[in-house]
Amino acid sequence: MPRLITLLTDFGTADGYVGEMKAVLATLAPSATIVDVAHDVSPHDVDGARLALARYWRRFPEGTVHLVVVDPGVGSDRGALAASSEGRFLVGPDNGVLSPALLHAGARCVSLSIPSGAAPTFHGRDVFAPAAAQLALGASLETLGAVEDGPVIRRTPEATRREDGAVQGEVITVDRFGNAVTNLLAMRGGRVQVNGLSLALRRTYSEAQAGEALALVGSSGLVEIAVRDGNAAEQLGLRRGSSVALLPLR
Amino acid sequence: MPRLITLLTDFGTADGYVGEMKAVLATLAPSATIVDVAHDVSPHDVDGARLALARYWRRFPEGTVHLVVVDPGVGSDRGALAASSEGRFLVGPDNGVLSPALLHAGARCVSLSIPSGAAPTFHGRDVFAPAAAQLALGASLETLGAVEDGPVIRRTPEATRREDGAVQGEVITVDRFGNAVTNLLAMRGGRVQVNGLSLALRRTYSEAQAGEALALVGSSGLVEIAVRDGNAAEQLGLRRGSSVALLPLR
Amino acid sequence: MPRLITLLTDFGTADGYVGEMKAVLATLAPSATIVDVAHDVSPHDVDGARLALARYWRRFPEGTVHLVVVDPGVGSDRGALAASSEGRFLVGPDNGVLSPALLHAGARCVSLSIPSGAAPTFHGRDVFAPAAAQLALGASLETLGAVEDGPVIRRTPEATRREDGAVQGEVITVDRFGNAVTNLLAMRGGRVQVNGLSLALRRTYSEAQAGEALALVGSSGLVEIAVRDGNAAEQLGLRRGSSVALLPLR
Repeated sequence: MPRLITLLTDFGTADGYVGEMKAVLATLAPSATIVDVAHDVSPHDVDGARLALARYWRRFPEGTVHLVVVDPGVGSDRGALAASSEGRFLVGPDNGVLSPALLHAGARCVSLSIPSGAAPTFHGRDVFAPAAAQLALGASLETLGAVEDGPVIRRTPEATRREDGAVQGEVITVDRFGNAVTNLLAMRGGRVQVNGLSLALRRTYSEAQAGEALALVGSSGLVEIAVRDGNAAEQLGLRRGSSVALLPLR
Repeated sequence: MPRLITLLTDFGTADGYVGEMKAVLATLAPSATIVDVAHDVSPHDVDGARLALARYWRRFPEGTVHLVVVDPGVGSDRGALAASSEGRFLVGPDNGVLSPALLHAGARCVSLSIPSGAAPTFHGRDVFAPAAAQLALGASLETLGAVEDGPVIRRTPEATRREDGAVQGEVITVDRFGNAVTNLLAMRGGRVQVNGLSLALRRTYSEAQAGEALALVGSSGLVEIAVRDGNAAEQLGLRRGSSVALLPLR
Repeated sequence: MPRLITLLTDFGTADGYVGEMKAVLATLAPSATIVDVAHDVSPHDVDGARLALARYWRRFPEGTVHLVVVDPGVGSDRGALAASSEGRFLVGPDNGVLSPALLHAGARCVSLSIPSGAAPTFHGRDVFAPAAAQLALGASLETLGAVEDGPVIRRTPEATRREDGAVQGEVITVDRFGNAVTNLLAMRGGRVQVNGLSLALRRTYSEAQAGEALALVGSSGLVEIAVRDGNAAEQLGLRRGSSVALLPLR
């Protein structure tokens, strides 16, 4: 089977940047299949890209190369990485965006050198796409650079247990539907407190009335705040970092 | 030739949801080719997706699998469908979004069962993508579920003839250019009345002056209201459901 | 290797138009690989598409077919083109959007005839996609139409030397990050004057402080105005046509 190269960027879908990256991939690894994940990550939103990557990287077949370019520090002394983890490969800036894969036991990481001809403003085209192409062609990770033992790691903040027994968390991302994804795990039900509301955990959106706020366990296993047929982030004033708490069943 | 799987969703192009669905397809049907149609359907806009699907589903080669996930009722008791029609396959929620294909003579439909492990908020990943992959691998429709004889059908409202001989219709969708597509058929010319304007039917946008409103027969055979080099919906205050009438030539 | 067909349009990512074009390509040239470049070019923005195309067309492998449909004059008497340049093929309206390739020495151009059944509002589907498919299948350019010696050419305005020795230029496009790309070439450094600011040319965004405006040479070799971790176009009030000047080092 041809190798897959997935793309996640904040380049948008109006300019020619995605085209330039795909041109490099098509030239260097013509047998690979390019898979667009998303190009409308908010500009420079490393954490948004990191959380998106967490959803899909391990679901693709072994051998897939995940290319992630959300790179506000391009041209600075931030490193450039290629990594392998759970049989998948990853390429991107050393700014924490690859953390979901790097945190797995057995992950390996090398530091990509920056060719002297690389544009200091576009490593996606001149550094990361060429490395992804090499991996898709079967190059071993170690041929791409020296081992990097201390890559930058960004973590989702962990929820904490409060003295009253509740679990204190926060909104970690808001998706296109306005659903506010939190860092709360809810194994056994409970109630969610957010902005003065107390919401019973439901199983699906459809258990609420149209326009009603609800909490449920989303498809990544985390508690989400939603409004049925509405936009919870807008209607409840939620954004990344907003406080939420989980009161477990007693 | 490898089978094609087309994707139409309202998942947007910033999150990881499209990536998760593509990962399932790439894992289960690695020989299939994934074709993005659009992922920025307005959230939960079943009719918008239905009208988009109507434009392309029958133009793809026989054997193509059209995967459509605009699914506000996910996790409720709404059904999950796989269908065949005119040699193409379709997979999506039983909410009317697949109607353009289901309304064709000879269309067949089965009800997909929901695996117990499926996330109640993401059947695109856990129900529809696996079914699409099976069809792309050549599975027969009947192996995917029990025959469903009464799928939900949503229809574009039909224009009606008025006593004065005019045909009363409405705007059914607004496209990215602000063109307002109506449910009016115009075989032999006529004038279009909309918001107090009376517009002669033109053949092309370029027969109007810059900034001028016009009516014409669009590429799907329906009357559209446009503004040359402008946005008709914004400038004329049109939206889905806005009233329009066609006065045929006498 | 299968031929590539790249797509650049202003059709957006919510409607079915891209699906219709891909259906034509998949039907007529099933062995070709479709590569999305971008579909969110601003509606009717021929110059935006032209500048995007300039970035990527020559980076793809020889034999690639670049399909560009930003076509405000569709259905008028504007011509329809297929071209070859530097071993790549291009298809699109004769409105200047293909100029980056047409301006190269050795470029050849033919005029596509419009089939009588083509929708006068959608040549992307009925004229350009079929021509792109033929080229991807290996048809020679000359079989597609008569030689066109005088295609419409649109050029980026050239910067001019002022009496005071500075080079007077302008913003030619603004990208998704709010970076304002100018028509200034800066081989040897200098300072950039824009909206009353005098900005030293830096090498990378990271040489400025967060929120600070800077000028640098972007990845296409042109001077750009940026704001570190910000949006220069919004914060400095820049848009296409805004005046900028380069004061060379003395």
